Amino acid sequence: MSNPQFTFRQTTFTHPSLILTRRTTICRTTLHTQLAQLRANGQYDCFKLKWHPIFDDNSRWPAPLHLFWDSDVGKWIEGACYFLADTYDAEIDFAVRDLVEMIRSAQHDDGYINVHFSVVEPGKRWTNIRDMHEMYNAGHLIEAALAHRAYYKNDRLMDPLNRYITHIRARFGPDAGQLRAYPGHPEIELALLRVYSATGNRDAYDLARFFLGERGNPAGQAGQHFYDWEAEQRDEPRWKRPNSWPMDRSFWYCQAHAPILEQETVEGHAVRAMYLLTAAADLLNLSNEIKPSAAEAAVALAKADEWLAALRRLWSNMVHRKMYLTGGVGAVAQWEGFGIDYFLPQGPDEGGGYAETCASVGVMMLAERLLHADPVLNGEYGDVMELCLYNNVMTAMSADGKAFTYENQLASCDTARSEREDWFVCACCPPNVTRLFGSLGGYLWDYGALGEEGGVYVNVHLYTSAEVKFAACGREVRFEQKSNWPWEGRVEFRIKGAEGLDATVRLRIPAWAKGQYELMPSPRPGECTFDTGYIHLGPTYIAEHPSFSLDVHGFEPRFVAPHPYTNQRTLSLARGPVVYCVEDADNEWEENHFRDIGIKAGERVEDVWRDDRIRGEKYVALKTRGWQRSPEVLQGGGDGVGRELVFVPFYFRSNRGGKGQMRVGLRDDGR
Amino acid sequence: MSNPQFTFRQTTFTHPSLILTRRTTICRTTLHTQLAQLRANGQYDCFKLKWHPIFDDNSRWPAPLHLFWDSDVGKWIEGACYFLADTYDAEIDFAVRDLVEMIRSAQHDDGYINVHFSVVEPGKRWTNIRDMHEMYNAGHLIEAALAHRAYYKNDRLMDPLNRYITHIRARFGPDAGQLRAYPGHPEIELALLRVYSATGNRDAYDLARFFLGERGNPAGQAGQHFYDWEAEQRDEPRWKRPNSWPMDRSFWYCQAHAPILEQETVEGHAVRAMYLLTAAADLLNLSNEIKPSAAEAAVALAKADEWLAALRRLWSNMVHRKMYLTGGVGAVAQWEGFGIDYFLPQGPDEGGGYAETCASVGVMMLAERLLHADPVLNGEYGDVMELCLYNNVMTAMSADGKAFTYENQLASCDTARSEREDWFVCACCPPNVTRLFGSLGGYLWDYGALGEEGGVYVNVHLYTSAEVKFAACGREVRFEQKSNWPWEGRVEFRIKGAEGLDATVRLRIPAWAKGQYELMPSPRPGECTFDTGYIHLGPTYIAEHPSFSLDVHGFEPRFVAPHPYTNQRTLSLARGPVVYCVEDADNEWEENHFRDIGIKAGERVEDVWRDDRIRGEKYVALKTRGWQRSPEVLQGGGDGVGRELVFVPFYFRSNRGGKGQMRVGLRDDGR
Repeated sequence: MSNPQFTFRQTTFTHPSLILTRRTTICRTTLHTQLAQLRANGQYDCFKLKWHPIFDDNSRWPAPLHLFWDSDVGKWIEGACYFLADTYDAEIDFAVRDLVEMIRSAQHDDGYINVHFSVVEPGKRWTNIRDMHEMYNAGHLIEAALAHRAYYKNDRLMDPLNRYITHIRARFGPDAGQLRAYPGHPEIELALLRVYSATGNRDAYDLARFFLGERGNPAGQAGQHFYDWEAEQRDEPRWKRPNSWPMDRSFWYCQAHAPILEQETVEGHAVRAMYLLTAAADLLNLSNEIKPSAAEAAVALAKADEWLAALRRLWSNMVHRKMYLTGGVGAVAQWEGFGIDYFLPQGPDEGGGYAETCASVGVMMLAERLLHADPVLNGEYGDVMELCLYNNVMTAMSADGKAFTYENQLASCDTARSEREDWFVCACCPPNVTRLFGSLGGYLWDYGALGEEGGVYVNVHLYTSAEVKFAACGREVRFEQKSNWPWEGRVEFRIKGAEGLDATVRLRIPAWAKGQYELMPSPRPGECTFDTGYIHLGPTYIAEHPSFSLDVHGFEPRFVAPHPYTNQRTLSLARGPVVYCVEDADNEWEENHFRDIGIKAGERVEDVWRDDRIRGEKYVALKTRGWQRSPEVLQGGGDGVGRELVFVPFYFRSNRGGKGQMRVGLRDDGR
Repeated sequence: MSNPQFTFRQTTFTHPSLILTRRTTICRTTLHTQLAQLRANGQYDCFKLKWHPIFDDNSRWPAPLHLFWDSDVGKWIEGACYFLADTYDAEIDFAVRDLVEMIRSAQHDDGYINVHFSVVEPGKRWTNIRDMHEMYNAGHLIEAALAHRAYYKNDRLMDPLNRYITHIRARFGPDAGQLRAYPGHPEIELALLRVYSATGNRDAYDLARFFLGERGNPAGQAGQHFYDWEAEQRDEPRWKRPNSWPMDRSFWYCQAHAPILEQETVEGHAVRAMYLLTAAADLLNLSNEIKPSAAEAAVALAKADEWLAALRRLWSNMVHRKMYLTGGVGAVAQWEGFGIDYFLPQGPDEGGGYAETCASVGVMMLAERLLHADPVLNGEYGDVMELCLYNNVMTAMSADGKAFTYENQLASCDTARSEREDWFVCACCPPNVTRLFGSLGGYLWDYGALGEEGGVYVNVHLYTSAEVKFAACGREVRFEQKSNWPWEGRVEFRIKGAEGLDATVRLRIPAWAKGQYELMPSPRPGECTFDTGYIHLGPTYIAEHPSFSLDVHGFEPRFVAPHPYTNQRTLSLARGPVVYCVEDADNEWEENHFRDIGIKAGERVEDVWRDDRIRGEKYVALKTRGWQRSPEVLQGGGDGVGRELVFVPFYFRSNRGGKGQMRVGLRDDGR
């Protein structure tokens, strides 16, 4: 099983590429400002296990403010190692090494590593696996160790984490004397499966598989749901519940209301759901990869078909009923998670609009895994991955790389303006953006040797300018793409080193292109087929045209209406994979968060190329005509005031000052 | 201060009257079936203070299932006494007398009356005033006692309740040694003010005024919010909270997040809010009534202008931003209460649609009180009162008087069909409908002597066929109205016994009439003025025309669109005060709860008179053309299937079997 976190090293981005622009900013700026934040806020030194004033804060229960610090450090290390692989930076290198030594020094003799339970509540390890994030933190440290190992080619961080895995494996599992627990916040499962994949550590695999299979067991521990049993041990009545639980026993908050295979809809905290399903997809990927000759029968997944069905079912429920136009998921702030089907308010003043950054990073992880785990190469996975990338994920960081969003509402209001922050008390999102962009090369494509007769394949999921080198059939194959995506649909490809090999190339045609594209040179009948979102170019075509180009249509601006069952009277603009918004920075007359602005689907929309020198950004803005009508004017049937509206990409919002007024879906005024 | 609960006796309904039809059903059927339910479920005998198996049920915290039993009995007695005043019924009479003796026997020597704390937790009286409904139950018993006293002309029930009031007054208040508590569920406040008004009991007034003024005090008890202090006494952490509280310290749930005068928006449990504001309006009413000569200076309300401002502010927030088209309020099921502004989903599958029956009964109470408390006679109060009556309240009982709704969603879904139940575990709504209809005569109008020069006035708020007799200036004045409201707009009036007196008559012109009406005979210039929703007919006109008629326009069917900020793409039909819905009983082809049906505002709508002999109902149904289009057809721009749609009054839903599919707001397909 190869994940983007391993394979990204084989890809190099080239110009022009919006992804490369962001990667350069992160490498030059973000890694350093995030490091400065870690130093300023206490995380950097936390593994020294000294007391910090924040440890006295009891304002939040059950998870105190510093409970995620281990993971903050882990995620930063992971992102740093990905970028070091691209560009050496002495300050970053030093900090990684320093942090690794501190983590090593914080390990207990029995392998345990956790700041809170070492310093603040040393006697209470593993007494609240539902809420206290020990396994979540462990998971991120493990992912850091894998990134560290890949870059530094040593086990200074992997060693202690392997010992920690052994510690956990001994305590949790199906055997006598073990607790049948599973983490309240999934994460360790996917980390463990990556450890197994990279190092063959069977403890890691067994533990992940146990966690995934045991989750939601109504009678796992002493005939009780583990979280009920555990709460009883803590002497907590069922009524005492975290603020994120609307009701007692809201186990759906952490996807533990039923075994995964029995879950009909995607529920609860969106990040947890995405990390969990990513791990489930990895479990399936590992099972799929078993060769007849392999001795790895242990990773054959019982009920593999049911795991595939569950993943498809939950994916489909999310994508078709619970996802914003921007790729955001998790509409409800209270549990940072999924609401009921079609419940997608644009912002807090409409009753939702959370759409956490980490959740869409998680959607991208899941989508990428499903491109492998699902035997059908389904363009929807790639479409959604791209949607998240250019919208809900990219909007989470400012163009200068210094400010972030946690929530990504589609409309501002007075109590939630469209603004970014330098950092957060719970700082999960900023380093998640960092590590996603660090490993993004691995999301572009997959490739390798094909079959037993000496063929190679490249499946291209994301378009940009980049090159990948990989070994296949004893050769080094190089595959290049060059384009001005996401602004223009023309992509030029070149394959080298595959001469004489049967080469198959599959190219995703986004759903918004409505099947409209051109290949140059044109394939002869039979040389190109189209199926479930991908065109398949066979060996004959590739052999004849090692350089060829694709022109994807659909880059004219389009009006997008929400699903009828959302019952929303809104209309948005999109162009290619990019979703647009209006901001007061361009529309300075706006005073009411664009609540009173309507647009019409038939109206002309004009492309305007912009080169924002201050922000170093080139993008296509859109212009169309709208109508400003107050409720009174509207109900009276009046025409209101005509307005020339300027739209910018949603990801570009909140980069140019202004009043923080923004909206994606405007009132639909019909045709 | 006179409330409808006192004045209704002066009004007699005549035919034709939809209200009279319902009253007859309740009198003949509902009182008996509800009595049978009380007998079958344990409430009837609960004041015998014997153990009942349900007392063993610990499944609900903090309020066990039987906690409301005292109020169930109280509300039934209250409703029964109202109807006995109209029609004697030996079985009902016997049951009231029997229940009263049982209540008397259940009183402790110190005056305390409460089933739960007498039988189940005798040591825990007054330890959880936030959740345990002692005062709520007391309030309903007090209202029962007032109704009983008015009908039976004795104090068999009033006496023990007066002793209970003395008991409560001794424990709670601002003095040393008293607790600065106030009930989690308001109700006792309005009951106490009615006691004061009927009997002059100053303890009752002082207690109500203290409760209303103290509510939401952030530092009332030992420098703490009372509910924080009280929870500490119970050794409960702030995290342990009822299921209705989305967050810890959700004091807004019971309107205790801030003092009433400082509350900017109407929040929390809708019934609690309505009962509370009704009491606040009564406090203001009592203050307004002080005559210069009266010795009642103690009921002069400090900051009366601020109380009026708060009542207007909270009313306006509710009516303009948080009320359904049907007069339902409280969109959110979890706390049975108000959501954010403009958050009005039609049903559970859209994320809300609770609209509890009791809440709209409460809106009617509040509206009626505000017609007196507000120095401006504002037609909006009357409009909303009527809206609730003919829609969210009337829909809560079946035409046969035997089945009820608790929640009144505007659209059904598979998990919440449009159906009624015989009874509820928490049986607040059915007897609330009973007592509302029992006292409904008091809501129609107010009247009396006017000024010091021997004049009389009648303000007519609701139209139907009825007659009122009242004493004024030493005479008996009779005022009649006759109409086929709510189907036809013509109302004939006659005043008798006012000869020689200056008589002023004010008639509400509903907002949906858009100011269109005719008086016959036509008034001369200056004889009729129109202001804030009422026409004012002066003494000259009335003296000349003791019989006159009003013809209110606006009974043609109209399309109603929601406020633009609800962002909903729906359209509904209404006619006069009646809001319509589609049901599968008329539209038998429907299989998807009318989610796929659109209507157009320009389309022709036809009135169809129906005489439903089985249900004994005459009403106007509506017919128009709609378009059935699935999401796929709609997104593809297809025409779909044309459908002849039949609409019936929302109040008439779920009377004729069917599949329980119903919807008020259909997809708006434009013009």
